[in-house]
Amino acid sequence: MADEAPIRFGIVGCAEIARKLARAITLASSCTVHAIASRSIEKAEQFAGKTNLAETAVKVYGSYDELLDDPDVDAVYMPLPTSLHLKWAVLAAEKKKHLLLEKPTALDVVELDKILKACEDNGVQFMDASMWYHHPRTAKMKELLSDPHIFGQIKVIHTSASFLAGPEFLENDIRVKPDLDALGALGDVGWYCVGSILWAMDLKLPTTVTAVPKVARNPAGVIMSCSATLNWEEETLATFYCSFLADYTQDITVCASKGTLRVQDFVLPYEGTTAAFSFTTGAKFVDLHIGWNVKPQEVQVINEPPQEVLMVEEFARLVKNIKSSNCKPESKWPQKSRMTQLVLDAVKQSIDLGFKPVHL
Amino acid sequence: MADEAPIRFGIVGCAEIARKLARAITLASSCTVHAIASRSIEKAEQFAGKTNLAETAVKVYGSYDELLDDPDVDAVYMPLPTSLHLKWAVLAAEKKKHLLLEKPTALDVVELDKILKACEDNGVQFMDASMWYHHPRTAKMKELLSDPHIFGQIKVIHTSASFLAGPEFLENDIRVKPDLDALGALGDVGWYCVGSILWAMDLKLPTTVTAVPKVARNPAGVIMSCSATLNWEEETLATFYCSFLADYTQDITVCASKGTLRVQDFVLPYEGTTAAFSFTTGAKFVDLHIGWNVKPQEVQVINEPPQEVLMVEEFARLVKNIKSSNCKPESKWPQKSRMTQLVLDAVKQSIDLGFKPVHL
Repeated sequence: MADEAPIRFGIVGCAEIARKLARAITLASSCTVHAIASRSIEKAEQFAGKTNLAETAVKVYGSYDELLDDPDVDAVYMPLPTSLHLKWAVLAAEKKKHLLLEKPTALDVVELDKILKACEDNGVQFMDASMWYHHPRTAKMKELLSDPHIFGQIKVIHTSASFLAGPEFLENDIRVKPDLDALGALGDVGWYCVGSILWAMDLKLPTTVTAVPKVARNPAGVIMSCSATLNWEEETLATFYCSFLADYTQDITVCASKGTLRVQDFVLPYEGTTAAFSFTTGAKFVDLHIGWNVKPQEVQVINEPPQEVLMVEEFARLVKNIKSSNCKPESKWPQKSRMTQLVLDAVKQSIDLGFKPVHL
Repeated sequence: MADEAPIRFGIVGCAEIARKLARAITLASSCTVHAIASRSIEKAEQFAGKTNLAETAVKVYGSYDELLDDPDVDAVYMPLPTSLHLKWAVLAAEKKKHLLLEKPTALDVVELDKILKACEDNGVQFMDASMWYHHPRTAKMKELLSDPHIFGQIKVIHTSASFLAGPEFLENDIRVKPDLDALGALGDVGWYCVGSILWAMDLKLPTTVTAVPKVARNPAGVIMSCSATLNWEEETLATFYCSFLADYTQDITVCASKGTLRVQDFVLPYEGTTAAFSFTTGAKFVDLHIGWNVKPQEVQVINEPPQEVLMVEEFARLVKNIKSSNCKPESKWPQKSRMTQLVLDAVKQSIDLGFKPVHL
């Protein structure tokens, strides 16, 4: 049967994160890493060795073009520097390869729209490689947040995503280079902050986005740390902080009228196969204000396999539906990416305007 | 011996919070509630009944003046509406009463300076009634935050203090009335947010304060909810959110270069005699980015008696030192209040200027 054939992935670019994805594709049911490509055959071979893919007779290409010309590649995972996305993602779509694209998806929404149009024109699935959307914890949090008896109306959201980059990263990583990943921390960890706010708000775009003074930049001008506030017409407010210069945080706090939800490892759970969050609902002070009537409830969610495998499996499921049942690509994934990119653009614009509000 | 005589408190104003303080004074070692005053003798008697003070032969006054004229009152606890602080706090100091003043201490720093001058001129101790500073958890958190090996340089602080006010509060509480507590949520819960940021920053004033659009107000124009960002010369950033319109939160998150501290009930611990916070230090991702090397460590701090009693005892200790040993009043408490008031003023000014930055 057609739908029993594995989805054959090509990995375009041998970034460090590709090691995790190569493993995830190998662990995912009915997916295989069919080929890998780097700018040089040596780098691709080295990567194959490091990831034990050499033993699985993976095809190794010394150029991205060759991989995209391989008719046996169904889908590509593309962890290239952001400034290369437009060229290679469009070409991948034109070669009818389904596209799992690393974030940030593009340098701006104009570029992303070209990528999405290429995907649409060629009937291929688009998804950005934000893994946390695929964790069952995320669905469980959403289920609770959507319960009007537990949470009610969302009033304020605060998210942060940061890590303390070492000297090697700050000197050499593609995310600090203006010609490779011009969005810096905003594009990298900020992608998660903005995505999590939009996730909490059911993908409702804010009406106003205002960057917070001030922004830390490296000598080349790339954003190392920034913060912004988002407003909606109703009184809802969100703030976020993203940084390469602070300790590891991955916080979402959603405070609604009746309850508050908190998670502190939303991007990458502390452990691979179990994750937690906490919430309170119906809180009030006891008589004389000497304590609370409730304490946060911790919710544990077991996940097997880990979120990166679940992402690959969901992507592969959509690809299979397209290949075997002539389904159309699922539009919610490109929509989610596009809204995230749109808000990132607004943050960047607000920074460029000297922290003026940008209306969406 | 002089220092064995109890410190005799007068309670000026019978606000709901005074019930908690009356209990705290009764529980505190060598402190007594000597007198209570309300605008009417009936209200004062009713309060005495509710708090079981009637049984202790407490003096009951139908005016604040009478209490302040009682030579047996050493110190007053004053939970009056903010707009009455200037008049009655100054008069209390002039009558040589040591002053434990509810927050916000005044409508602005100009008023507060008059109160502080009256206290200084009359040699009486000033302290605002922020209880959480006196909890041993606060000292434990500070001890860890000050350890450069655990936390390093503070990068970003986020705090929030909110509660969902009911219809009765939103209609009738003094904190929603422009003539009584004109600062609304900013003065009430915002006091804790600003205070906690200054606490984390070792009372270093921010250089710039910018309110975040937008502010929720009640029909009378009083702030029900607002948010602001604070900047320091170095790259440190703080944001806070305070509200009468959102679920109960009391969060401090301090993210430094090497570690992150989180507490979620900093104003009023979930329980009276034990409190917790958590921190991570030295976090990084494990190989392949499939988890973290550390999880948050929870620190439990036992406190006996509760924080409100510890506050009263610390205040009484300072008063005793002044009375029996001719010590000067401790200046750190008025300084802390003054800086908090100064930042509140800047937030309010920024709001009034249409969310423009205010430089301190």
